[in-house]
Amino acid sequence: MYRIAVDLQGADNPPEVLADGVIRALADSSDLCVYLCGDKENTEKMFEGKGVDMKRLIIVDAPETILNDEDPVAAVGIKKNSSLAVGMGLCKSGDVGAFVTCGATGGIFVTAMKTLERIGSPVLLAELRKADGTPFCIADCGANVDCRAEKLVHFARMGKAYMKALGVENPRISLLSNGAEDGKGNAVTKKANALLREAEGLNFTGNIEGTDILMGTTDVVVCEGFSGNILLKTIEGSVKAVLGEGVAMFEKVSSADDARRDDLYRVFKRLYNQYDYTELGGGVLLGFKAPIIKGHGAATAETVYHIIKNAYALVRNDLIRKIEAEFSE
Amino acid sequence: MYRIAVDLQGADNPPEVLADGVIRALADSSDLCVYLCGDKENTEKMFEGKGVDMKRLIIVDAPETILNDEDPVAAVGIKKNSSLAVGMGLCKSGDVGAFVTCGATGGIFVTAMKTLERIGSPVLLAELRKADGTPFCIADCGANVDCRAEKLVHFARMGKAYMKALGVENPRISLLSNGAEDGKGNAVTKKANALLREAEGLNFTGNIEGTDILMGTTDVVVCEGFSGNILLKTIEGSVKAVLGEGVAMFEKVSSADDARRDDLYRVFKRLYNQYDYTELGGGVLLGFKAPIIKGHGAATAETVYHIIKNAYALVRNDLIRKIEAEFSE
Repeated sequence: MYRIAVDLQGADNPPEVLADGVIRALADSSDLCVYLCGDKENTEKMFEGKGVDMKRLIIVDAPETILNDEDPVAAVGIKKNSSLAVGMGLCKSGDVGAFVTCGATGGIFVTAMKTLERIGSPVLLAELRKADGTPFCIADCGANVDCRAEKLVHFARMGKAYMKALGVENPRISLLSNGAEDGKGNAVTKKANALLREAEGLNFTGNIEGTDILMGTTDVVVCEGFSGNILLKTIEGSVKAVLGEGVAMFEKVSSADDARRDDLYRVFKRLYNQYDYTELGGGVLLGFKAPIIKGHGAATAETVYHIIKNAYALVRNDLIRKIEAEFSE
Repeated sequence: MYRIAVDLQGADNPPEVLADGVIRALADSSDLCVYLCGDKENTEKMFEGKGVDMKRLIIVDAPETILNDEDPVAAVGIKKNSSLAVGMGLCKSGDVGAFVTCGATGGIFVTAMKTLERIGSPVLLAELRKADGTPFCIADCGANVDCRAEKLVHFARMGKAYMKALGVENPRISLLSNGAEDGKGNAVTKKANALLREAEGLNFTGNIEGTDILMGTTDVVVCEGFSGNILLKTIEGSVKAVLGEGVAMFEKVSSADDARRDDLYRVFKRLYNQYDYTELGGGVLLGFKAPIIKGHGAATAETVYHIIKNAYALVRNDLIRKIEAEFSE
């Protein structure tokens, strides 16, 4: 049985709306057990009469919620029974192997730092799909805005372990820069390139430019959180702009009968889903005893379904053992 | 008459192939005069019998070419009669108001620094189109990889002057960051935000994220060259990936008859052109007595046509006076 703690509090949508994602994930995998951290009474009601196997849905009372507009340090200090504290407590005790939440980012970080044993440096990793449909990841994409070059080697190791957990045998690791040659980059990047060239056990393929990210040349994009965040959000924004506009343009240039338009919408919707990393896998916070998979604040039941599936795969494929191996070598 | 120096040497395609772009631009604007810097004999042959008004095409002998694989400092020192040296000499003497080239980037920088009077800090600006079709620019996109925060205020002023030359009355200026709030960013960005808030005469609208760049919320994106280059290339790469894949997917999901497929290609081709900044306007190097408009190395006659048109608009709309006004205030 693979055990995962799930927190449906603190998102824009109420837990009742998100609960469907849990039900779908449980129905998919008979060896998945969810520890749902939330207000007990309310949570029990949410799942009543939904045909859920209650042996695989354990409700753990967590009556408090850390909100997005609260000061995270203060809120974590006061709300000892928040869904974040309870969920990460289950990670700490080893009852579960991963934690899924759509809650407040600041609260997640502060609670993790306070609660969980560390393995390596904390890094926020995003999983996306390349044009050919295969996954890759960006590490870091916002948790470490300014970095020393040494940190980027840690990110490379985390990314390597993550991609191995997804079944990629010898992940190719690339360093985000403004040019493909080793000499290109800002000061941190140039130094990180040299360190990555020297590092043992990393399949480092050199620098990568923004043009080549989606073209299938790498498995792990290593970068400071500042540029990683720009990379991630620019992919998202560009894809949305092109697809949104494509639909509008098609309507203008086409003599479009309905069937033709339906075709196009289907293509665009598929493309859109492929690049919508928040729907697909969420951000993954690594560097702790258990992976924390974070859906965006505007998460839907669909998002929750996908991020639980992602957490399940990471537990099943022993991500944490792989990270430990990377950092003990 | 608007006078522009054009260099067709040093690109992947030979000058003969690129010459058509010059002919088209001359045909478009009867008040455009091109000073073509190249090997005289060869250049004369290229335009023979093409119906060009030779009063508006002045051939200036420049028998040498600075190549991409040469050390730029050494090459500029030796090749006194390179097309870059001759073209920028015409800018210096005031014979022309702008210089267009698809030559070696390093050679362009070194020649400009050596030859031309400076106004403000050198900045490489890229002009792109937003989803609604209106232009915006990124400053800097690669000339200044690591910057002090003060430089970003210079970039904002250059971008403002540039957008004014394109007819935008009070350009909105935004700072690229990993979050929209003022407190978000790496150390340089946080400091630049504070300086931009204090700066006089700038319509600074705060930070902008990668998701919002193409959505029409700003006219000038200010950033260090490192993140600007990542932004620019990620837009390009994402658009290409989505469009390329869109075609492939359409073929799979669609019962596509030929007319339907033609429609789609037309939509994708238009979208592609809209986002292909190198085809559209090239990179613009500012900070000198004349703007230098650079096409990419793989430029075609179409590229040359577009970048001459862009140079023509910048001269006609008095970009350099607008930059001088920004830096004398």
